[in-house]
Amino acid sequence: MTDAYEAAGVDYGTLDAAKRLAMDLGAATLGLPAPRGATVVAGSIGEPATLIEVDGLTLAVVLECLGTKSMIARDVEDQIGLDRWAAVGIDAVAAIVNDLCCAGALPLTLNAYFATGSADWYSDSRHRSLMTGWSEACLDVGAAWVGGESPTLSGLVDPRQIDIAGSALGRVPVGAARWEGAALQSGDEIVFVASSGLHANGASLARAVAGSPAACPGGWAEPLPSGRAFGDAVLDASVLYPALVDALYAAGVPVHYASHVTGHGWRKVMRAARSLTYRLTCLPEVPEVLSFIVSRAALGTREAYGTLNMGAGFSVFVAAGAGDAAVAAAEERGYSALLAGIVEDGPRRVVVEPLGFEFASGELELR
Amino acid sequence: MTDAYEAAGVDYGTLDAAKRLAMDLGAATLGLPAPRGATVVAGSIGEPATLIEVDGLTLAVVLECLGTKSMIARDVEDQIGLDRWAAVGIDAVAAIVNDLCCAGALPLTLNAYFATGSADWYSDSRHRSLMTGWSEACLDVGAAWVGGESPTLSGLVDPRQIDIAGSALGRVPVGAARWEGAALQSGDEIVFVASSGLHANGASLARAVAGSPAACPGGWAEPLPSGRAFGDAVLDASVLYPALVDALYAAGVPVHYASHVTGHGWRKVMRAARSLTYRLTCLPEVPEVLSFIVSRAALGTREAYGTLNMGAGFSVFVAAGAGDAAVAAAEERGYSALLAGIVEDGPRRVVVEPLGFEFASGELELR
Repeated sequence: MTDAYEAAGVDYGTLDAAKRLAMDLGAATLGLPAPRGATVVAGSIGEPATLIEVDGLTLAVVLECLGTKSMIARDVEDQIGLDRWAAVGIDAVAAIVNDLCCAGALPLTLNAYFATGSADWYSDSRHRSLMTGWSEACLDVGAAWVGGESPTLSGLVDPRQIDIAGSALGRVPVGAARWEGAALQSGDEIVFVASSGLHANGASLARAVAGSPAACPGGWAEPLPSGRAFGDAVLDASVLYPALVDALYAAGVPVHYASHVTGHGWRKVMRAARSLTYRLTCLPEVPEVLSFIVSRAALGTREAYGTLNMGAGFSVFVAAGAGDAAVAAAEERGYSALLAGIVEDGPRRVVVEPLGFEFASGELELR
Repeated sequence: MTDAYEAAGVDYGTLDAAKRLAMDLGAATLGLPAPRGATVVAGSIGEPATLIEVDGLTLAVVLECLGTKSMIARDVEDQIGLDRWAAVGIDAVAAIVNDLCCAGALPLTLNAYFATGSADWYSDSRHRSLMTGWSEACLDVGAAWVGGESPTLSGLVDPRQIDIAGSALGRVPVGAARWEGAALQSGDEIVFVASSGLHANGASLARAVAGSPAACPGGWAEPLPSGRAFGDAVLDASVLYPALVDALYAAGVPVHYASHVTGHGWRKVMRAARSLTYRLTCLPEVPEVLSFIVSRAALGTREAYGTLNMGAGFSVFVAAGAGDAAVAAAEERGYSALLAGIVEDGPRRVVVEPLGFEFASGELELR
């Protein structure tokens, strides 16, 4: 498929080759911590979070970045005078802890990485908003914000910008079954939990839209059908999914796998390294801001679903018959969720039945 | 004191205020992971690594960045044709795991963060060298390289550059006493373990020297007294200290505290939040490249020791009489080490007796 991201300047081809080299070199190191009592769970390598067993505990580690979404916040601040940095702080925590959620791990600690190109970045109130949003997200997900780094990288990072990333330590509850994908099978049910909008993925595309006078004459001030400014809506804070994971455990839902829907859009539904078909029959509502981006970027429907989350922020794969319980557990905690489809025997692909297209295995190369 | 870093464009004043805000907000989150069985060790907040107790294990987490040293590697590559990216990979791992060492923790896993401004960065062999160095360092320190992120941040990171950071999970051996500084007391002995040169700290200053035709006409090609090019020597890989920690445990050395000597130079010797005087009577040899930088940047001696590591990469504070055993343990693993001084009752300060100056408590504001 045509990749809307390549059009926006991200070359996944070259990047993925480097990623593969990193994974090959990394593979030679996986046994090293054994003398210190730690075993890396091989099946978690290449997944959003890595699992490590240490003296009977199952821990999870992750490092994630927010990408270029912070550039939107800066432009929106400068062009329409809105300070949406608190939402960016929540987005950053979400990018990190939602990775842990894919492994069924709940966060314990978070470290922040805020790299700027000039100490002047901190002379304004935006850093207070950013850090307040970050700490509010920590309160929401029950994680301790224990430290981080805030280097000034003059000449490396643009002086107007901030590079935001972070790391987390999490744990899988004692006795919980692994959400590793090994248990995935025909008949399993697919539950989609709603996103709130763009989340951390699609920032380059959104910026391309806002920067195109032909597509979007008002830039970030361009009104959506509801009347909200594009730049306001695009910065709605991401949904945090740790409470969903908590709820699924509390309800005893038999989860076989979980995948957040980030880069590569709904192609991520087939993230598990398994030969299975994922047939989707019921679609979530598309957030207004995503419909707007799709329309103004003139994306085809298939391209839109292969790029953006289109309303599905997190997908959970549960044992046959357990879908309704998963939906109920999610909704009790305030999430919107729906039973979206089913897992079938067949080639690895995602079939989006109501829209009449599918994504083939070769369209998602992550490992 | 005049801060050589402020002259080179880093404003620690503004940054430290933001750091304090982050710590205040973070403080309100520290108790959150208790329901998940995890307790943050309060005394480790603000230290190079954070300790967390989880079901009887003492874990350590850290996120660290390499700063602008990668900019040197790029300039040296472009200007004198040397690929020293493998050393940069080792530097990055050193920056991360040496933080763990300060807490007496040994690394289990590492995650890498490589942010570029253009996917073109990966089109050259430099990324192979970088990743090879990173993975060799993982082999050296016994840590599994389990993942990471390599975003392309077009417009945020300069297209010629790479922002390198990473995170690690470590553990303190079962039954080991904490290296928290609470046990530090008058009579304790201070052992310095040698650095190999610049390490990760002082990159901006080194670049300022190389970029000044008056101070350094040959730029990165300028020969040191030994004949080595400045740009070659400045990229000597950092020393990795986990094997030192291993050796100290194996020899049963009673360690009370440890501090790597990074930003703020020897002011870091008084890193512990204690009112004690650190009297240094024996100094390590200064690596040639540091003497060169001091001379060409026309730093005063006091300024040099308050900025660079000056040959002391890591300091270990041990019980009275245990200094020689610490030195022996270090040397057996191939480190150079020396008994450098002693802890005394008195105001918090570092007295550098052979050179006739001292650093007062107010000259190190980290918390």
